[in-house]
Amino acid sequence: MDDIKLAKVENVRMIDRYNAKNPTVGTLYLTATHLIFVEPDSNKETWILHMHIANIEKLPLSTTGSPLLIRCKTFLSVTFVIPKDSECHDVYTSLMKLYQPVSINKLYCFNYQPAKDDFPKTSGWDFFKLESEFKRMRVPNEIWTLCTLNMNYELCDTYPRHVYVPQEANTAMLIGSSRFRSKGRLPALTYLHSNKASICRCSQPLSGFSARCLEDEQMLEAIRKTNPNTDYMYVVDTRPRINAMANRAAGKGYENEAFYENIKFHFLGIENIHVQRSSLQKLIEACEQKTPTMSGFLNSLESSGWLKNIRSILDTSSFIANAVDKGVSVVVHCSDGWDRTAQVCSLAALMLDPYYRTIKGFQALIEKDWLAFGHKFSERCGHVQTDPREVSPIFTQFLDCTWQLMNQRSDAFEFNERFLLILHDHVHSCQFGTFVGNCEKDRLDLKLSERTFSLWGFMANHLNEYINPLYKPDVDKTIKPNLQPQCIKFWRGMFSRFESGVHPREPLSDLLLVSKDHCTSLEDHVQHLTKRIASFKNYISKSAKKLQDATAKSYKEPVSEINDNKYNYDKKMSELSSADDDHPLKPAGMSFANLSLNERIDSTNIMEEINSVAVDWKSMRSVTACSCSTPFDQFSKKTHCWKCGDIFCERCIDKSIPLPGQDSGKPVPVCRTCFRLVQKTSP
Amino acid sequence: MDDIKLAKVENVRMIDRYNAKNPTVGTLYLTATHLIFVEPDSNKETWILHMHIANIEKLPLSTTGSPLLIRCKTFLSVTFVIPKDSECHDVYTSLMKLYQPVSINKLYCFNYQPAKDDFPKTSGWDFFKLESEFKRMRVPNEIWTLCTLNMNYELCDTYPRHVYVPQEANTAMLIGSSRFRSKGRLPALTYLHSNKASICRCSQPLSGFSARCLEDEQMLEAIRKTNPNTDYMYVVDTRPRINAMANRAAGKGYENEAFYENIKFHFLGIENIHVQRSSLQKLIEACEQKTPTMSGFLNSLESSGWLKNIRSILDTSSFIANAVDKGVSVVVHCSDGWDRTAQVCSLAALMLDPYYRTIKGFQALIEKDWLAFGHKFSERCGHVQTDPREVSPIFTQFLDCTWQLMNQRSDAFEFNERFLLILHDHVHSCQFGTFVGNCEKDRLDLKLSERTFSLWGFMANHLNEYINPLYKPDVDKTIKPNLQPQCIKFWRGMFSRFESGVHPREPLSDLLLVSKDHCTSLEDHVQHLTKRIASFKNYISKSAKKLQDATAKSYKEPVSEINDNKYNYDKKMSELSSADDDHPLKPAGMSFANLSLNERIDSTNIMEEINSVAVDWKSMRSVTACSCSTPFDQFSKKTHCWKCGDIFCERCIDKSIPLPGQDSGKPVPVCRTCFRLVQKTSP
Repeated sequence: MDDIKLAKVENVRMIDRYNAKNPTVGTLYLTATHLIFVEPDSNKETWILHMHIANIEKLPLSTTGSPLLIRCKTFLSVTFVIPKDSECHDVYTSLMKLYQPVSINKLYCFNYQPAKDDFPKTSGWDFFKLESEFKRMRVPNEIWTLCTLNMNYELCDTYPRHVYVPQEANTAMLIGSSRFRSKGRLPALTYLHSNKASICRCSQPLSGFSARCLEDEQMLEAIRKTNPNTDYMYVVDTRPRINAMANRAAGKGYENEAFYENIKFHFLGIENIHVQRSSLQKLIEACEQKTPTMSGFLNSLESSGWLKNIRSILDTSSFIANAVDKGVSVVVHCSDGWDRTAQVCSLAALMLDPYYRTIKGFQALIEKDWLAFGHKFSERCGHVQTDPREVSPIFTQFLDCTWQLMNQRSDAFEFNERFLLILHDHVHSCQFGTFVGNCEKDRLDLKLSERTFSLWGFMANHLNEYINPLYKPDVDKTIKPNLQPQCIKFWRGMFSRFESGVHPREPLSDLLLVSKDHCTSLEDHVQHLTKRIASFKNYISKSAKKLQDATAKSYKEPVSEINDNKYNYDKKMSELSSADDDHPLKPAGMSFANLSLNERIDSTNIMEEINSVAVDWKSMRSVTACSCSTPFDQFSKKTHCWKCGDIFCERCIDKSIPLPGQDSGKPVPVCRTCFRLVQKTSP
Repeated sequence: MDDIKLAKVENVRMIDRYNAKNPTVGTLYLTATHLIFVEPDSNKETWILHMHIANIEKLPLSTTGSPLLIRCKTFLSVTFVIPKDSECHDVYTSLMKLYQPVSINKLYCFNYQPAKDDFPKTSGWDFFKLESEFKRMRVPNEIWTLCTLNMNYELCDTYPRHVYVPQEANTAMLIGSSRFRSKGRLPALTYLHSNKASICRCSQPLSGFSARCLEDEQMLEAIRKTNPNTDYMYVVDTRPRINAMANRAAGKGYENEAFYENIKFHFLGIENIHVQRSSLQKLIEACEQKTPTMSGFLNSLESSGWLKNIRSILDTSSFIANAVDKGVSVVVHCSDGWDRTAQVCSLAALMLDPYYRTIKGFQALIEKDWLAFGHKFSERCGHVQTDPREVSPIFTQFLDCTWQLMNQRSDAFEFNERFLLILHDHVHSCQFGTFVGNCEKDRLDLKLSERTFSLWGFMANHLNEYINPLYKPDVDKTIKPNLQPQCIKFWRGMFSRFESGVHPREPLSDLLLVSKDHCTSLEDHVQHLTKRIASFKNYISKSAKKLQDATAKSYKEPVSEINDNKYNYDKKMSELSSADDDHPLKPAGMSFANLSLNERIDSTNIMEEINSVAVDWKSMRSVTACSCSTPFDQFSKKTHCWKCGDIFCERCIDKSIPLPGQDSGKPVPVCRTCFRLVQKTSP
């Protein structure tokens, strides 16, 4: 960072679109990694990671200073008005060097250090192995095998080392087919359904106007034969037919139907990366209109085509999922097979397999269809200085489509919207090495697993922030989205994320999660108390007997009272002995003398037990900051301590411990103070 | 119903837009009040209330029969294909006579009988008295008085009897102003804020091109003077200026600014009833497209102008609310002052006063600004055969605007979306007399409160279905909506209500409500169990002492054991006596002998207490029908029995009773079986 001037600028005005009339005045700090704006009055801080900056614009001088408009990949858009133009220029030129480095080795992940005792550098890099994911699908088997030709990326350098192909495909077919496909991306298995129907993916054939390749034809035939249920399969070309045709002039194109037997070809009309890039650009403009009218917004939303594009990705994915669900195999490609193909293969699998709708499964899906099969993250996200025509929101669309599915089937996903937003932000942040580079080979060459932290390791420490309280793992295997236009929604939570007043104070699903946790805690506590009462009763009835025997000798109590009790006592005894048999914690062979002794000793702990579980939980509404004085905003996850019922931020509630007043003995989240208290009293 | 042919037609196919390919075959019944379609295979019944039908269309004959397209005011749209054309014709002509009677006395409310022991005919008619609502606003007072000139509707027959005006306004001013205003609708108080700023409403002045009225000018001046905080007030003309100008040709128009002092005039651009009617028509068409594209839907959503119109109503209401909040009074009118004026006066009050955001308050608001001030429900909703140009979704828009506010401030409203939908449906159903007629006088003349049931009475029996679990009564007094276009949403829950697959299986807020109830129940139970344990402990320690004393005499126990216990015992005694002091239920002056006796007797009931509270509650998901075999759909409210934890429909869970295992003694919902069980065992 030698040539970068790090700065501190006073009296800067921050203007966001919704408080244009009341800008806040504060100090702007330019650090090596962040731009930080501090409002001295409210102590509020706005942090902008350099890596998150999408573009910077110097606007014309105004009376109050030089305005700098910064647009972020997180869809934050903010203007800083800097009093002196020279200072503004310094900040501008520094940022220009910082936000998009020339060399991949300058990315944030190579400097990033998490807070200590957070998690080790190795954590997460070994979570997902392609072989394990295929093993989960029972591959290899007697039909599908591991092709060893790509172990050193000789067959296709943007594919994974491990490529799964039909047993029947021989080396000649594999090499021939690979040579006949754009960038060598031969047809390979990506998803095998329980009914033997599969999804294979590849790039377009180099067919031009007339070329054919016998090996490629044999390869598709071999794939078709892997599925004994039907005598045909689909080849889905995700492109509009016209795009596919245009490619023929460059010696690429699509399969000649005459040469491929028993295959049904379908063109499905997802537009290319350039259309998608400009679609997002128009969507951002639609959201940024200065004095927007309703018609203006709806018209520009429509003409951005964003929702249309989302719908067409979902539509194609849905076509594939339905085919596979009905037992027909599908081979999917677009041009190079790393953008649209990645989208629809992963979304179809998401619809078909409930595993991919879990947190772990979704990450495995990304590892497979996006990372292993070579989606060019560094180029598409513009991590480093690159041809701007290579940037395109392909992965953002995948997340948007997932969000649309979640909206329709909130019970089918283990994760929530926050999970998608975190994923989106870290794909762009380069804080972790996970999404750096364009393919598996790139990541190996960069030695990312040694030099950087893994996003999966980080996320594994924050799983409780991503849980969808409505998730039911037992729901339908295949989900079928409704693709009526009314059902495709503008994703306010992503694209209008930073507009104040747009969002509810608390997401409903967060409140539901808290309420469910509270129920779980109370249920557990009731179990415990109920068992306690059963033991007490037991003790009482037994000692009552003792007492009765003893007092009968020592005192002269009125006979009537003893008789009254006699009735209750008998009833109670029979009731209790049966209750006692049910008691799962009933110690076997405990003698009477021991029992009463133990019970008496236990009873001294009862207050501790009762106090160990919070009955009332603090309301989320009234809380604006954690006790560590971190302010809460709409994005912060707030967690209750199950012992004291107070609310803490993620950093303050990182411990779990079983509570003496709960029956299950499961470790539950507690704040640090309560953790120490419980630890002290526990044996 | 003499000339109506009631019919039963077999082999009818029902087609709704989303199962056009798989129509269901069943039997169509035409009763005096409903059209009922029964699917024999699934036992599913579709009931269409005649009053809910908006229009009926006979479509061209198809190969399978005569199609009859029925569109409902509830936005259900369904086609019945009837095998024989003659039968179809019979159904068609019968429905044409039934769905929109000529005479108001033929409306459903005059025949409707609720299920017995539901609620008496008088219930609800006396819930809202205009005087009480004004008394709540501390009117009359030294500034505002009740005008007695309209007691027999002489001044204005579409106004309420009770009209509140400035103390300073004399009879000449009132009569003069009334004569100078369209339909005699003089300026009258509708909302008084705590800061003395007020909202008054009226109709347009009959000013034509040059007419003036001194009394009217004095009247507005008198209103201005009621508010000592500012020396000016606003007159808000909700119409676009061009509309107001066009009215001058008919001798109506707007106030001449030159004649009214200290008043700021504002035109605010809400379109008239004809624009709104056609806007809804286009919205329905947008939702009904046969093969809709994303652009097609967004374009027709935009060109329907529905969201633009909703936004402009909210915008005007917001303007009024902000003015009043800042201490400036506002007089509002449109043309006749019963459509746009009703919308914006009620919405501004809804933003200003948290009372109107409660269930009762919202109903009071409707009683005041819609029913008392003469919104023409029967004409606008097309209850009877009327000029179709009088029909317009003015009240539907009010509900839509309320829904938009609820969306933004989910914590500020006591009620939920279901409440708005029920209201909407019953405004059109005419099942209750509440919304029949065009003004207060109409309803009195029709003797509705004697002849029909009140919707408010009905709703009072179903309050628990309308509760918003996020409601916090203590939130900000005035709510300020964000009117950015991104924040104005298409109300899927209303307009796409009957499209399968559009809605979540369970509304998130219903799930939250259940979870919160479950927490409340468990908290209460924990309180009870904790107190029980404290009593037990007390009993044990005391009887242990007795036992110890007694056994010390009778048995020879090892000395060491007694010593061990001694330590615990002493610790326990001091701990317990303090615990006991805290015990709120601790009986004063209870003797030792009594205590142990009582405790012993109580302990026999403990199992009953423990069993009286369900710890686990059944999951809502797995339940498709109530035990009474009523199937649950997305609209049905499902309620848990707090004793057994099972799920029931509204009809089966109509009892509340305190549970022995809960500390608060509050009556809680239980199913009928559990009710009997608890009743039997309770003293």
